[in-house]
Amino acid sequence: MLAEIRGLNEECGVFGIWNHPNPAQLSYYGLHALQHRGQEGAGIVVSDGKHLRAVKGEGLVNDVFNEEKLKSIEGTSAIAHVRYTTAGGAGIENVQPLLFHSSTGSLSIAHNGNLVNANRLKKYLERQGSIFHSSSDTEVLAHLIKKSTHAPFSEKVKNALTLLEGAYSFLIMTKDELIVARDRHGLRPLALGKLGDAYVVASETCAFDLIGAETVRSIEPGEMLIINEEGMRSVRYQEEQTRSMCAMEYVYLARPDSDIDGINVHMARKRMGKALAKECMHIEADVVTGVPDSSISAAIGFAEETGLPYELGLIKNRYVGRTFIQPTQELRERGVKMKLSPVVQVVKGKRVVMVDDSIVRGTTSRRIVKMLKDAGAAEVHVVISSPPMTHPCYYGIDTSTAEDLIASSQSIEEIRDTIGADSLTFLSVEGMVNSIDRPYEDDNKGLCLACFTSNYPTEIFSDTILPHEKELQL
Amino acid sequence: MLAEIRGLNEECGVFGIWNHPNPAQLSYYGLHALQHRGQEGAGIVVSDGKHLRAVKGEGLVNDVFNEEKLKSIEGTSAIAHVRYTTAGGAGIENVQPLLFHSSTGSLSIAHNGNLVNANRLKKYLERQGSIFHSSSDTEVLAHLIKKSTHAPFSEKVKNALTLLEGAYSFLIMTKDELIVARDRHGLRPLALGKLGDAYVVASETCAFDLIGAETVRSIEPGEMLIINEEGMRSVRYQEEQTRSMCAMEYVYLARPDSDIDGINVHMARKRMGKALAKECMHIEADVVTGVPDSSISAAIGFAEETGLPYELGLIKNRYVGRTFIQPTQELRERGVKMKLSPVVQVVKGKRVVMVDDSIVRGTTSRRIVKMLKDAGAAEVHVVISSPPMTHPCYYGIDTSTAEDLIASSQSIEEIRDTIGADSLTFLSVEGMVNSIDRPYEDDNKGLCLACFTSNYPTEIFSDTILPHEKELQL
Amino acid sequence: MLAEIRGLNEECGVFGIWNHPNPAQLSYYGLHALQHRGQEGAGIVVSDGKHLRAVKGEGLVNDVFNEEKLKSIEGTSAIAHVRYTTAGGAGIENVQPLLFHSSTGSLSIAHNGNLVNANRLKKYLERQGSIFHSSSDTEVLAHLIKKSTHAPFSEKVKNALTLLEGAYSFLIMTKDELIVARDRHGLRPLALGKLGDAYVVASETCAFDLIGAETVRSIEPGEMLIINEEGMRSVRYQEEQTRSMCAMEYVYLARPDSDIDGINVHMARKRMGKALAKECMHIEADVVTGVPDSSISAAIGFAEETGLPYELGLIKNRYVGRTFIQPTQELRERGVKMKLSPVVQVVKGKRVVMVDDSIVRGTTSRRIVKMLKDAGAAEVHVVISSPPMTHPCYYGIDTSTAEDLIASSQSIEEIRDTIGADSLTFLSVEGMVNSIDRPYEDDNKGLCLACFTSNYPTEIFSDTILPHEKELQL
Amino acid sequence: MLAEIRGLNEECGVFGIWNHPNPAQLSYYGLHALQHRGQEGAGIVVSDGKHLRAVKGEGLVNDVFNEEKLKSIEGTSAIAHVRYTTAGGAGIENVQPLLFHSSTGSLSIAHNGNLVNANRLKKYLERQGSIFHSSSDTEVLAHLIKKSTHAPFSEKVKNALTLLEGAYSFLIMTKDELIVARDRHGLRPLALGKLGDAYVVASETCAFDLIGAETVRSIEPGEMLIINEEGMRSVRYQEEQTRSMCAMEYVYLARPDSDIDGINVHMARKRMGKALAKECMHIEADVVTGVPDSSISAAIGFAEETGLPYELGLIKNRYVGRTFIQPTQELRERGVKMKLSPVVQVVKGKRVVMVDDSIVRGTTSRRIVKMLKDAGAAEVHVVISSPPMTHPCYYGIDTSTAEDLIASSQSIEEIRDTIGADSLTFLSVEGMVNSIDRPYEDDNKGLCLACFTSNYPTEIFSDTILPHEKELQL
Repeated sequence: MLAEIRGLNEECGVFGIWNHPNPAQLSYYGLHALQHRGQEGAGIVVSDGKHLRAVKGEGLVNDVFNEEKLKSIEGTSAIAHVRYTTAGGAGIENVQPLLFHSSTGSLSIAHNGNLVNANRLKKYLERQGSIFHSSSDTEVLAHLIKKSTHAPFSEKVKNALTLLEGAYSFLIMTKDELIVARDRHGLRPLALGKLGDAYVVASETCAFDLIGAETVRSIEPGEMLIINEEGMRSVRYQEEQTRSMCAMEYVYLARPDSDIDGINVHMARKRMGKALAKECMHIEADVVTGVPDSSISAAIGFAEETGLPYELGLIKNRYVGRTFIQPTQELRERGVKMKLSPVVQVVKGKRVVMVDDSIVRGTTSRRIVKMLKDAGAAEVHVVISSPPMTHPCYYGIDTSTAEDLIASSQSIEEIRDTIGADSLTFLSVEGMVNSIDRPYEDDNKGLCLACFTSNYPTEIFSDTILPHEKELQL
Repeated sequence: MLAEIRGLNEECGVFGIWNHPNPAQLSYYGLHALQHRGQEGAGIVVSDGKHLRAVKGEGLVNDVFNEEKLKSIEGTSAIAHVRYTTAGGAGIENVQPLLFHSSTGSLSIAHNGNLVNANRLKKYLERQGSIFHSSSDTEVLAHLIKKSTHAPFSEKVKNALTLLEGAYSFLIMTKDELIVARDRHGLRPLALGKLGDAYVVASETCAFDLIGAETVRSIEPGEMLIINEEGMRSVRYQEEQTRSMCAMEYVYLARPDSDIDGINVHMARKRMGKALAKECMHIEADVVTGVPDSSISAAIGFAEETGLPYELGLIKNRYVGRTFIQPTQELRERGVKMKLSPVVQVVKGKRVVMVDDSIVRGTTSRRIVKMLKDAGAAEVHVVISSPPMTHPCYYGIDTSTAEDLIASSQSIEEIRDTIGADSLTFLSVEGMVNSIDRPYEDDNKGLCLACFTSNYPTEIFSDTILPHEKELQL
Repeated sequence: MLAEIRGLNEECGVFGIWNHPNPAQLSYYGLHALQHRGQEGAGIVVSDGKHLRAVKGEGLVNDVFNEEKLKSIEGTSAIAHVRYTTAGGAGIENVQPLLFHSSTGSLSIAHNGNLVNANRLKKYLERQGSIFHSSSDTEVLAHLIKKSTHAPFSEKVKNALTLLEGAYSFLIMTKDELIVARDRHGLRPLALGKLGDAYVVASETCAFDLIGAETVRSIEPGEMLIINEEGMRSVRYQEEQTRSMCAMEYVYLARPDSDIDGINVHMARKRMGKALAKECMHIEADVVTGVPDSSISAAIGFAEETGLPYELGLIKNRYVGRTFIQPTQELRERGVKMKLSPVVQVVKGKRVVMVDDSIVRGTTSRRIVKMLKDAGAAEVHVVISSPPMTHPCYYGIDTSTAEDLIASSQSIEEIRDTIGADSLTFLSVEGMVNSIDRPYEDDNKGLCLACFTSNYPTEIFSDTILPHEKELQL
Repeated sequence: MLAEIRGLNEECGVFGIWNHPNPAQLSYYGLHALQHRGQEGAGIVVSDGKHLRAVKGEGLVNDVFNEEKLKSIEGTSAIAHVRYTTAGGAGIENVQPLLFHSSTGSLSIAHNGNLVNANRLKKYLERQGSIFHSSSDTEVLAHLIKKSTHAPFSEKVKNALTLLEGAYSFLIMTKDELIVARDRHGLRPLALGKLGDAYVVASETCAFDLIGAETVRSIEPGEMLIINEEGMRSVRYQEEQTRSMCAMEYVYLARPDSDIDGINVHMARKRMGKALAKECMHIEADVVTGVPDSSISAAIGFAEETGLPYELGLIKNRYVGRTFIQPTQELRERGVKMKLSPVVQVVKGKRVVMVDDSIVRGTTSRRIVKMLKDAGAAEVHVVISSPPMTHPCYYGIDTSTAEDLIASSQSIEEIRDTIGADSLTFLSVEGMVNSIDRPYEDDNKGLCLACFTSNYPTEIFSDTILPHEKELQL
């Protein structure tokens, strides 16, 4: 389904590289590979061993950087970030990596995730006189590091991280050290790679493939890597909790060519499609089609399992970037398509299985079902390769609040009616977990299923807020 | 396969709309739908019944237009164009629609195709004192119209068209008339649609779907439509020859959601994939993958026919536009991927069938085969959903000259060796023609197969030149 | 006074350079020096001995060019142009130099001036089948050259020029020749310079000073220079008429550091200011101030002659370029200043002599007088360093039509009343001519005074039109 | 003289408006009037009574803002800033106004000036755990305000300001209050105006004139204005010291149409020119010329006093903005002029008095003298309308360090020899003080003369640094 029009938004990607002659260029390509995780802002901070220098901006990676800018930040190491959340006029302040200066040296941080105790830590810090420049959680870590009385620097970071609760993949860079940390639940993905003598880290392994680096392994939950001229050292700064990798990364967030904890995302999705097919053998149909891009793999699996022909029934219109002129309401009502167009000859007169990865508010599903029926589909059977989402995510996926989640208040039959489908089937939780098939023996094979089950792996505080609420807080 | 890196380039798209309150806006969306046909320049000329005004520029549709510019050309009718060929410093002069002024009124022309007698017509006109502003064939038509002694205007056009030989879809607009013409061989596609009271024309029907218009029919070879305040009138200005629609439009040029002469492109490609599978049942393999985007449909068909699993073994990196910073040669050699990345977990240890739509020089195929093998593929079987291209195209597809076409000088076994594949199979001409399955009884079901068979439907003159040679001629 | 707000607009500047390793770069600086002559568009066409390549665009010189674009047009020679007239959506077509292609080689033309028989030549050419791309006169010359049966190329040009009537400074470049021509009346300035081995030509000598070239002389009326690898050759292609250099170039068009026919513009203006002072010795005042920028020199002369203190009573707000956000009407009414601000402490309680170079419609003068009075000036005496303009200019200065010229219908006393001044004095024609003090013995010392005297040096035809009317003609 | 090429740089301008329906638009025009004080960055922060929102960017005012951006920050009050110092890649962080967020509301600060105890306050704050985002002094104030235990907000500010030593004009805005403060020495100018019901403040009164506001008075040294919905209240938060307004504001920093403490800048400069003329009656010369723009007024005064003719002997080439393509070293050596061109006919064979406002390193003076001699000047007598600068400024003017000041190590005769002038005269300190003629009776009529006399009005600490050293400190 289409992230842009339903409020299920991807939440940032991080990339880092240590000890390479072209850190800015490679970060640029790394961010390209992670572009799907955030399209509202991008930044690269480079260290040349003496100073940290940043290039940041709002918009797509291609909008923010040009050759001249990349050349202006040459050095040997870099951290980089793509950002989802839009932030109105004050946006540039929130574009990461954040960069802090002090007489003892500069510090830069890039963050993927969402802290659940950020608000109370902020209040604590403000009472102690801290001032915040952005509305992001990320600054909290900088202040905690600064206030730590430990030494050396990596001990300060370690000390500060123990106070954080929630989801995070952090890249923290000074002029001579890169520290990489993942929360103890392992909620957001973070992988380690090697490119010759250089270390690389990224939210997804597709960034390694693009630059020709090889994937080494995932950063472990509660693990901290300290990378400097002496090499790389791994420290466990917090004891591991039950592993809780976000299931939605497999369902729709990550790129199909990424591996998360050794599981290829495309293959996992295809298995989800197959499992879904098994769970809805009752459907009689003529063709299978997926909602591009994220549901293609599941649709292929569904078709393969059922033996139904897989067709391109929906085409994505690749309007890109901020400069696209949106159709006016009037033009849209007169039929100007936005993100998707149906392929009439494929669906006309056919009983269509439409595979999607999830339903948030239901508005997009309703629109697509209508589009297919207007194009002549005889029946539209909607099958969803994940379970009904009933609870909001506090760990960095910007779903709406609970009220906005259609599955939190409507039964499946009611949703089917709302979206106008002839039938509606969700993949079962068990089917999803087994399809992803992670190599862990613990509950749920180490997946966070909170948005389906309300079983949050961390405490949720009275002042824990959802990502999009941070904008309003300003 | 990737048009951008092999010299098999798409050659322009046209869009026109008559009698609508938002002609510039709808042309903008129409050009978006046709963006795949040309990414180097775009233009819209609008008539408000009194004057013609243009907005044009180099780059993608999104780069060229903004809201302010579209508002500056309000009116009731428009013709529009996306252009492939790059033209160095002088490019803006070649961006279409071309616009000509005279004391008796202005004239604008948009052209998709390539004339084979343009050079001799130009020389003739120059001898008569004509001056050319661009290097395009299109100006020839303007001069011929101007020099015609017939009346009314549509007769001038009709008279001028009879002198043209080659491939063209023309949109010709004055302040109060829109004339649409297709060459008598029907080499390039051109379709007519309706949007309420408005007439629309476009190179591909996907443009109609995007704006909510309905497809009426194809313009017939040798047909001319005269659209003005009295309505639409069809005139046959040349007797129809044997129909010769470019087969490559079905193979890779057109968008999968377009219909050409009533045949859906995706479905045709899927059938080609199936036919190809039947022609190479000898191949033993584990997975099927297509080269995105244009070979996906054929790969799906191939997988369906063989029963092999269809997988995403190659992912396209959607770098868009002129602003993308190309990796240096050094970075590329060190492994920075350009357009495609392999999905290691999908291909590792597998015998992979790689479906592509065509081979031009062979360099890209070699690169992709190597990429798959580097990613661990045990075997790579390349199957091509069209026959070997042995002859250049003079009708608007910018293939290289004959020497550059690998199939013009190498046997299939030699090509296989060049690209490093374990096997190589091309679809037979008969298999392709039958798969496309056009509803005509004549030879080749009305397809132009010249690039496979050298059977050119028009005369080729001693001074007929290929599209890319025009740039050099300046 | 302020050209931008009164319709007395500067009309283009040309620059050319032959035989230099950096023709594009030097043209860029040359156009900077000529920027005051046209701010709506700029272009450079370079020859590398084989091809002509262009970079052109709308806006200021700085907006149109960047380093990358200049590098894309390296060569050995160039012609360049800054353009005044705005041309709506179709503007880019009118940006010069124009570039024409033919199988016998390309041709580029840059033009400063306005032809009086362009319309009838166009009609003649159209009847012969010519097509025009722009609304400019300049294309007429290209067609006449093309149609000429003479040889070699310079003879074609010579032949074509004899048909033109009106004002022009032409730069005409082929891949191996630069031809420079000035109309036989010498209406628009054009100077020749040398920069090492390179020849340079420009509308004003300030362009030579900026690039370190030395001024050689003016091109003579009716003279044509043919510059090629054999060197420079001067040809008189038309017998000289009475010299008629535009007096307004001295009054306000040219930059004060330019010399026209050996007369420095600043010095001429200062003499006009002195002459004006002598003609209005009756005025009793406290301070003298000039309307920046073009009236500063005259104001200095006025102050020097009268012994009154010269003060900065008006400051120009240097808003530049198309990107400036104009104040809304509401903000303007509430006092937001546009181009000029008064300096309160300088004028408060003072009897102010306000020196301006001319009055066209009177609206700007009225606004400035009011501004000074609002700032506390006790009296405002407006003195104008040129005679009343009573007739329109057909030679390239875009004054309004006769009706818009306030002096064509109002007496000096009526104008004084209209603009709200305490007194109003214009310099006499004789005073102006003597102040400019050109070294010619013929009538008016070789000046065109048509806008003051209606004594047009050329025939004016029934279809001769003013520059701004060309836009409307489209 | 030319600020850009000698290291005597203008240091920021501030503008604020309270209670107006178009605060962003008026700030835009206000910043335009102050553009000469800083050309490297600009920002506007608007309050709508609830939130603070910012638009900021690097470059000229015209580059940073467009209509859409201004519309995105509508509200009722604003503070705005133009910034001089360039800051490499990290620049955007230093563009003001700075904006700080906290759970108790946001805070924005704009600052013109330089603190002399910023470094020790920073170290103190860092030891207490503060983190700095920018390299500017301005953040120090935010931290001190935040740490203050006083209430209400204005008391916090008052308390924080008492710790600051040095030069400042501060605008401090919360969602419902605007606080304006000027250091107790009154080193940098700051004026109060009224525009209908709205209060306006600005570094210079020319900003008031541009928007049609009336000047009320200067903010007093040590005065703080608290403006909120209850109106405006003046508080003296520090007892006034000896007044020490920067003399260089009168000499060259401020715009000639601004009044500082009731003294018009143009008039003061003209008086300096006259005083200078009296001090060098020995010079025999033919013409007087000024180095544009800042020395024009003094040159006019000099000419008036001596009776010598004032001429435009030097013309400024108005290259603007970051997009201007600088000539290469090679082109410059071949004669391509940068900022200034001589007017040959004015200076040729003449004994020229060249009036400039100051000499810093002497390199620019040497270049101009050479330029005039190359243009044929028989003699060049350099007269400077201020005394020799022998000491660096710690209060916000980015002169170089003492070693770079030519007058700190060379006698006047040595400087004359260095710059190649025929004579060199500086205005005496007494002459300058009397010419400015401020209405105060204390020493030096309330001027800071530290750069001429080393008599710094504040303590200078061992870790006090010059503005440009801040960049290096990062």
